[in-house]
Amino acid sequence: MSAYSRFFSDRHASLEAYTPGEQPRDMAYIKLNTNESPYPPSPGVAAAVAREAGRLQLYSDPTCRDLNAKAAHVLGVGEDQILMTNGSDEILNFIFMAFGDSRHPFAFPTLTYGFYPVFARLNNIPYREIPMGTDLSIDPADYRGLGMHIVIANPNAPTGLYLDVSQIEQIVATNRDSVVVVDEAYIDFGGESCLPLLKAYDNLLITRTFSKSYSLAGARLGFGIGHPSLIADLNTIKYSTNPYNINRMTMAAGIAALEENDYYREKCRLVAGERERTKAALRGLGFTVTDSAANFLFAAHPELDGEELYLALRRRGILVRHFSTPAIRNYNRITVGTATQMDALLDAVKDYMKEVSVL
Amino acid sequence: MSAYSRFFSDRHASLEAYTPGEQPRDMAYIKLNTNESPYPPSPGVAAAVAREAGRLQLYSDPTCRDLNAKAAHVLGVGEDQILMTNGSDEILNFIFMAFGDSRHPFAFPTLTYGFYPVFARLNNIPYREIPMGTDLSIDPADYRGLGMHIVIANPNAPTGLYLDVSQIEQIVATNRDSVVVVDEAYIDFGGESCLPLLKAYDNLLITRTFSKSYSLAGARLGFGIGHPSLIADLNTIKYSTNPYNINRMTMAAGIAALEENDYYREKCRLVAGERERTKAALRGLGFTVTDSAANFLFAAHPELDGEELYLALRRRGILVRHFSTPAIRNYNRITVGTATQMDALLDAVKDYMKEVSVL
Repeated sequence: MSAYSRFFSDRHASLEAYTPGEQPRDMAYIKLNTNESPYPPSPGVAAAVAREAGRLQLYSDPTCRDLNAKAAHVLGVGEDQILMTNGSDEILNFIFMAFGDSRHPFAFPTLTYGFYPVFARLNNIPYREIPMGTDLSIDPADYRGLGMHIVIANPNAPTGLYLDVSQIEQIVATNRDSVVVVDEAYIDFGGESCLPLLKAYDNLLITRTFSKSYSLAGARLGFGIGHPSLIADLNTIKYSTNPYNINRMTMAAGIAALEENDYYREKCRLVAGERERTKAALRGLGFTVTDSAANFLFAAHPELDGEELYLALRRRGILVRHFSTPAIRNYNRITVGTATQMDALLDAVKDYMKEVSVL
Repeated sequence: MSAYSRFFSDRHASLEAYTPGEQPRDMAYIKLNTNESPYPPSPGVAAAVAREAGRLQLYSDPTCRDLNAKAAHVLGVGEDQILMTNGSDEILNFIFMAFGDSRHPFAFPTLTYGFYPVFARLNNIPYREIPMGTDLSIDPADYRGLGMHIVIANPNAPTGLYLDVSQIEQIVATNRDSVVVVDEAYIDFGGESCLPLLKAYDNLLITRTFSKSYSLAGARLGFGIGHPSLIADLNTIKYSTNPYNINRMTMAAGIAALEENDYYREKCRLVAGERERTKAALRGLGFTVTDSAANFLFAAHPELDGEELYLALRRRGILVRHFSTPAIRNYNRITVGTATQMDALLDAVKDYMKEVSVL
């Protein structure tokens, strides 16, 4: 980003935009850095997209009626409990916009999805970062009766660590006058969703994405699920921001994907299997690896510098995600790909460990 | 929208969301109510979309490099002068967010795109609505040295009236310490773009959309063009909001459409021809019709109630757009479609006029 123009509002003076994972174009990398699925979308998606391509001159349905109906059916909730957005970043931003203000701050863990503090700053909403355990875990007790809106990624990123439904319920039940957002972007890879809690709590909002378990990162589709009154608030924000926020092709892709749920469940099982195999192998090499329930691993080695390892893998054609945050600078986040990709990763790790005489 | 939840922030208490044109599903209407193109996208679009449908598991390029390069080439500007967005509503919202605050209000005409005041209220930015002439025209003199950020839709909606480049330049040149936004959503149907002014003025921002002249309303693609420093500011907002705001399919559709520019120019010529023919016919029936340079007509009849006419056309299977704003309640905005659609419109108008004994 270049320097701000003389017109840029002072209220954004301290804004630091989110930095997405790198998308280099200089060579064909094995991309294990942005938690994409290694599998293409199911067969029905391309056909559904093709049907829409010929009628793009017509606006998409701003109410997303058919897609909402399909998702509501699959999830067992009401159609008025769902709001579809242009990726889950959009629903998260809508949530900060709708419920946060100077008297209604947000709280979230110190280590979590890096966009939460950006949304808070963008909307001039105060926020508190709740410290984690030394094992990078989230202690639900820290969120008991906090009296602030709360966002918990579950499983959390970049650790992959997971709270079970009863732990989430403790947080939701002791903060009834605040909105508790559970970001379930990675829930399909082994966690148990807190969807059943929606029946009991009108202050719970769940966010989901089609980017990971539904192989649709490039289609941009996410959504929120919650009490109809929360969804109505978020719709007010949507209709004040971008009423036609979902294009026809993505809407059709989402419907087709939900119709082929079994395909994606099978792919999630494959990813979870590779995750466990790779985790065991990395631990065998001396790595500390969190018990991830997501489609990525978070790993550090006591004798290796995290950034050096990241660069060494990059030189070997493998991209992983390294964060410069001091507490986790020795870690790398590694997306779980196919068996072939994981073998390549493990070979590259061993090769580097030999180079620096750690193996 | 249902009532707000107990969690909805007070700062949105007075928010009235934008109401998009109706998308009824109870019968097959001739849709002349949302200014869509009556023509499908060019042949290359479907092929480009199909190529992307198989790799949707990968994120789209957040920098939109290829699409920006193509648009920059077609428009004769630098790649760093363009920001692509999820429809032009998104770039407009980014503009209000980036440049407006309590000390930097916006001004726009009383009658114009209904979303401008919504963006202002959403972002808590004061705004002033500048009155129009009795003929619904915009007088550039009213905007001379106004000392506020300014948004002018050119041609304006819903009137279709157009300011020439020298009139726009008066506004831009006398407000050098404010951003002047020229919303050229409808410029391709006969107006002259103020793109050449970009060389001289760093306070000019132009917005465009692929929804109208490029037959891509359902793909959701718009963009801003301006000085690199303004575009950098807007990118900061984008990367703080939704970095992957354009999906792969829409990006590919936009590139393909720009490669087939001649197809769209020809369709714009057809629309402009039908507009002039329909305008003359409506005037022949006694209507007051603005001299629209856009892909719609704005028409009122001295002996007909605007809403009654709207309802009468609807009963006859034709949807046009009626606004309840008092000053224009006798008008209807009629999208220009194919010759067949315009004949159907004129027949329905005449049929109703006979029914109420005005013809």
